[in-house]
Amino acid sequence: MNTSTNIRARVAGKDLAPLFAPKSIAIIGASADPAKFSGRFVPYLKRHNYAGAIYPINARRDEIAGERCYPDLASVPGDVDCVIYAAAASDAPQALAPCADKHVKLIVMTSAGFAERGDDEGRQAEAALVRLARDAGARVLGPNCVGFLNCVDSVAGAAAAAFEHEPPFPRGRIGVASQSGGIAMASIIIGGWSEGIGFSHVLSTGNEADLDIADAGRFLLEDENTDAICLTIEAVRDGDAFVDFLRDAQRAGKPVVVLKTGRSDLGQQMAASHTGALAGSHEVFTAAVQHYGVTLVDDLDELWQVAQMFAKLRASGKLLPRDGLFAGEGCAACSVSGGHIGLLADIASHAGMRFPALAEATQERLRTALGKTGAILNPVDMSGGSVADHGTWARTLAPLLDDPGVTVGLPIMTAAKNYDIVSNDLQKLDAEHAKPIVVTWAGGTFQGEGKPLVQRSSLPVFWTPGRTARGLLALDAWQRSHALAKAASASRTLPAPHPLIVDAAKSGRTSLTERESKQVIADLGFPVTRESLARSADEAVQLAQRFGFPVVLKGEHPDIAHKTEAGVVRLNLNSESEVRGAYADLVDRMAKAVPGVPANGVLVAEMAGAGIEFVMGARRDPVFGPMVMFGLGGIFVEALKDARLAPASLDMPRAHAMLRGIRGAALLQGPRGRAPADLAQLAALLCRLGEFALANVDHVSDIDINPLVLLNRPGANLCALDALILLAPRTERT
Amino acid sequence: MNTSTNIRARVAGKDLAPLFAPKSIAIIGASADPAKFSGRFVPYLKRHNYAGAIYPINARRDEIAGERCYPDLASVPGDVDCVIYAAAASDAPQALAPCADKHVKLIVMTSAGFAERGDDEGRQAEAALVRLARDAGARVLGPNCVGFLNCVDSVAGAAAAAFEHEPPFPRGRIGVASQSGGIAMASIIIGGWSEGIGFSHVLSTGNEADLDIADAGRFLLEDENTDAICLTIEAVRDGDAFVDFLRDAQRAGKPVVVLKTGRSDLGQQMAASHTGALAGSHEVFTAAVQHYGVTLVDDLDELWQVAQMFAKLRASGKLLPRDGLFAGEGCAACSVSGGHIGLLADIASHAGMRFPALAEATQERLRTALGKTGAILNPVDMSGGSVADHGTWARTLAPLLDDPGVTVGLPIMTAAKNYDIVSNDLQKLDAEHAKPIVVTWAGGTFQGEGKPLVQRSSLPVFWTPGRTARGLLALDAWQRSHALAKAASASRTLPAPHPLIVDAAKSGRTSLTERESKQVIADLGFPVTRESLARSADEAVQLAQRFGFPVVLKGEHPDIAHKTEAGVVRLNLNSESEVRGAYADLVDRMAKAVPGVPANGVLVAEMAGAGIEFVMGARRDPVFGPMVMFGLGGIFVEALKDARLAPASLDMPRAHAMLRGIRGAALLQGPRGRAPADLAQLAALLCRLGEFALANVDHVSDIDINPLVLLNRPGANLCALDALILLAPRTERT
Repeated sequence: MNTSTNIRARVAGKDLAPLFAPKSIAIIGASADPAKFSGRFVPYLKRHNYAGAIYPINARRDEIAGERCYPDLASVPGDVDCVIYAAAASDAPQALAPCADKHVKLIVMTSAGFAERGDDEGRQAEAALVRLARDAGARVLGPNCVGFLNCVDSVAGAAAAAFEHEPPFPRGRIGVASQSGGIAMASIIIGGWSEGIGFSHVLSTGNEADLDIADAGRFLLEDENTDAICLTIEAVRDGDAFVDFLRDAQRAGKPVVVLKTGRSDLGQQMAASHTGALAGSHEVFTAAVQHYGVTLVDDLDELWQVAQMFAKLRASGKLLPRDGLFAGEGCAACSVSGGHIGLLADIASHAGMRFPALAEATQERLRTALGKTGAILNPVDMSGGSVADHGTWARTLAPLLDDPGVTVGLPIMTAAKNYDIVSNDLQKLDAEHAKPIVVTWAGGTFQGEGKPLVQRSSLPVFWTPGRTARGLLALDAWQRSHALAKAASASRTLPAPHPLIVDAAKSGRTSLTERESKQVIADLGFPVTRESLARSADEAVQLAQRFGFPVVLKGEHPDIAHKTEAGVVRLNLNSESEVRGAYADLVDRMAKAVPGVPANGVLVAEMAGAGIEFVMGARRDPVFGPMVMFGLGGIFVEALKDARLAPASLDMPRAHAMLRGIRGAALLQGPRGRAPADLAQLAALLCRLGEFALANVDHVSDIDINPLVLLNRPGANLCALDALILLAPRTERT
Repeated sequence: MNTSTNIRARVAGKDLAPLFAPKSIAIIGASADPAKFSGRFVPYLKRHNYAGAIYPINARRDEIAGERCYPDLASVPGDVDCVIYAAAASDAPQALAPCADKHVKLIVMTSAGFAERGDDEGRQAEAALVRLARDAGARVLGPNCVGFLNCVDSVAGAAAAAFEHEPPFPRGRIGVASQSGGIAMASIIIGGWSEGIGFSHVLSTGNEADLDIADAGRFLLEDENTDAICLTIEAVRDGDAFVDFLRDAQRAGKPVVVLKTGRSDLGQQMAASHTGALAGSHEVFTAAVQHYGVTLVDDLDELWQVAQMFAKLRASGKLLPRDGLFAGEGCAACSVSGGHIGLLADIASHAGMRFPALAEATQERLRTALGKTGAILNPVDMSGGSVADHGTWARTLAPLLDDPGVTVGLPIMTAAKNYDIVSNDLQKLDAEHAKPIVVTWAGGTFQGEGKPLVQRSSLPVFWTPGRTARGLLALDAWQRSHALAKAASASRTLPAPHPLIVDAAKSGRTSLTERESKQVIADLGFPVTRESLARSADEAVQLAQRFGFPVVLKGEHPDIAHKTEAGVVRLNLNSESEVRGAYADLVDRMAKAVPGVPANGVLVAEMAGAGIEFVMGARRDPVFGPMVMFGLGGIFVEALKDARLAPASLDMPRAHAMLRGIRGAALLQGPRGRAPADLAQLAALLCRLGEFALANVDHVSDIDINPLVLLNRPGANLCALDALILLAPRTERT
């Protein structure tokens, strides 16, 4: 939790832009020893052509790396846009005091010794730092961060080993923000550059006392030099701001790729509840960010590789779906290696990508191009003879791209006579055709400049068929999510909070009774078993006769929340005498269980037949707010953990996607001749439950409808047998 | 299917070794144009220091690349060990006719135009080629292959673009066999060499008319220069030989890593059956090879990366578990980047790897080494200060490796003052300590020789935390599988075929009745509901009274296999009159359904209570032989596809692993207070079912016990409600 949120201010991304393009930089604690962390800032800024003024602050030196030293910040002539602080944490208040006078806009606090210490002293030092910055009108990056890199304006504002790279920096259109400095400034930059992938900006956010991952994301979202955003995240501190950023990025059509680390840390922050065991924190994060079109990756190299695909496609205007087809609906691959196209098609189609049959006109052109007869299958095996004739690539890919059913061309390069020519041909094709070409470059390393040529080109490139397949999957998912977001209505009016909830919350209650809970969900449109409270055996018999036998009797007592465990449920009562016997027994049991507190009475309920049990629910997540859930219910809840989550603001298409998304989705179709579920009804109920969770967010923490039974009968066959609504005041997000 | 199996001979791997180290090579169809495929053999052999004689066969040239040409094979002086054929398929019979006279041992048939054409002509040409070779005493690699590479003896027997690599070849201890020439000779070699990974042998097996993937595997298994085996497989042609090879590799402790492509192709070869939908061909392959300790990977780079870990660990004697601990039980990571150790620990522990608390003595040494106070957690955050002091690595890793709970040291290199020194220090540590060190090298590319140093060293190395985690997982799984295989008894005596099966098969029947099937599984020890055949209503009532009400009545008719679908099942009959009514109705229905064919009678069966439904079964796979299966049953079979497979030869530990391995395994533990299953009983039943499937392999194709119900009662609570045994003669594996 971020203790300084109360003094944190949100700004627009564009307002942050000048911060990372400072005209002057002072380095407090600059050392003259370039082997030291604090000795690298000045040499790296100079080595990488920083055009502004550099002011090393070091009272014991006259100059460092050719730049004149100043004893303190106050002595520097004129204003200073940016201060990099690399001295002891305890000296910061005094050393930074002149920030206001110097009109400093950004303090890059690389030093540790703040909130990450885990003690009060550290937290107080961090709060003091933010106050100082705020009073001075400056923003803070860090503390405990590595700094930033602006490749657009050549500002190497970090002491990163990656900056040993020969100048100039490879530039690209991927923006990076990472909570871990080591991951941002070592792996991402070094790994990316090693693969010929360039970046626009790289920010290490550290402790995020002021600027956090959402601010950094927003800056990259509004930055014109950035076409795709990479984030590595350990914990989201400001869920609202983060979701706002993701929603805006989705609307703007700028892809966000996330590597989430520290899942177990986030898990500890989650309140435990019985749905908590079912869908822990990582599931909430995953569901929330995927809702906003984020691509989640599993490893570092996938992060920058997928991002380069997105960035290149966006830069060349090929990111959005064309002709109403998503990328995965029309894959067309070709290679001289049958093994490679088999592998790519195998992995991609296993993940749901389609390789459609080619139009007859396309096949005719390919027969001519390849000197073949008969049907030409997709993927296209160009056969080994094409190795020597580089022109085959263009003659194969052009017809594929012209095919109306094809959405993306997937050449796989293994062996070629001349890689340079093939690379140039592919680039020419890319410029001439509106559809994307995503290259798999699985060979050609020891010959010519083909590999670096394709890396530097407009062509997205992966090094193995598996990586290409994962990239395609990400592209397809992003396009679908973007389309869903565009189709969704921009705003919605929430209903008023439910009076039963408001009243219960006013009385300080922590839950509704089962009867009240079922009343609430019945108001939302959930089919529930008819039930009513009996206060005498006669009344119980009358109700049973009205509902029709068999019935269920359940003792209702203000101090008994879990009826089954307390033994006050009687199922399958078939006659008046059974009802009378059960009534007497339940009243007796409740009196013994809670002596002196009178029972409310005994619930008499219609008995639904047996069916397939599902669960539907909602939970207020401390970071992402209300989430809805659907999955297998009953005894399968814990055992199979087959549930999907989504933000409560979901709409019908996303609700349908949730229903389709559980592993046991086929159970909704009526397995083995059983009656199928009404999916439209289920989706609408999910949406209404989400609306309810949002409308009552101040009071309701959990809603659990379990089981929601799918009965084996025609017509109306859904029935909620049990429901529980838990109340807890919403705590301020910190 | 391989049409030439009838003339295929199995040999020991050692007998194959001379084939791939020929003293002389003739290239039939050698071209003088090095841009052509057929023009590359001679220059590549020479470029890569082939020490034997080279005989280009080309009637129109005097010499090629400085080697004297011969008009045909017969004209070559003396014997020829190896012939590489790169001319037209149709010329092969004549051109290869002198092979016998020349004592040729290996024909490398790179030309296409054989069985892969899919027509009779191609198949006949392939069979003729194998006959010719057999008559000559030679073996065939291919046809339709790319050739082979022997890095130990410097034989570049292929026209692979990879051989543009500067000589000498990087040598290593990984052996590769691939059905796809493109994957073997382009991606694997080029990708591996690009990452500093060397190989011992690389074989492209192509159509596998003679030498197949099992032969190639066996050669690599017996090769002293190979410590890990990489295979890429589209389809296994000889399941018995392949399983024999895998079993021997597991016993020999030589790891096998497999990339399986063409899953959908293999799927087409599988007979469709109703368990087929549940566990298709890829599942059978996966279950079979994992049983023998194979590591399955998803992509090409993972193939060689995981293999280099295995090869390096085996070469340095660090592959086997130590002190009774498997690799994943004692992970200890350290890094100067907290982000990286968090990421590695997150991914690895999510996959089940453990990072144990460090012994107090270890912590004390680490406090001294790192200048820290308080508890030292695992993974160890060495903190940024260690960047400048390279000695910290050794001072941190040595205590970790000395810790009795630690099985593997996992340094993650991001930033260092001097990568060369760190790399050397790590190698020294590796030599001094008996436990493996697996390096993650996530930085240090632009400075010094650290990266190539560590690549060339004895240290297994991965480039991202995710890859390291997957490598660890593979190591741990391999060690566990190896231990299971060592513990298993070497041989077992199978019972005689079951008389009911033998009789039914003799009569040409294709299935047993439900009653017979249940009799058979009862003989195996499965608890079944009591049931008996009634031939009159009186008999039915007597049986019902003996079993106790309620009972089930099921019509039994020789022409009605699926009773529920035919409407001849009556559940929950509670009285004599209900039994009489149902009997009459069922007899009537059967008479109407199959007029003229008399029913056997009506089965009266005990009615088991409701419970959680599982399924157990066995199926004879055309490639891998009998497999057993366990999973969720009833309506969940198709919907959840939650089942595990294993070869029928499994033992108790593997049977327990299967039970634990289904997603719904928690249902066996007694969810929500229900009675748990007797896991030892279930495991024993699985083993007995497997034995039965093996003993009756000539007749039984499928056994389906569904549902196998777990009743909610104490004590004996398993009951098989239904069983079906299908019969089909075993076809010769081809």
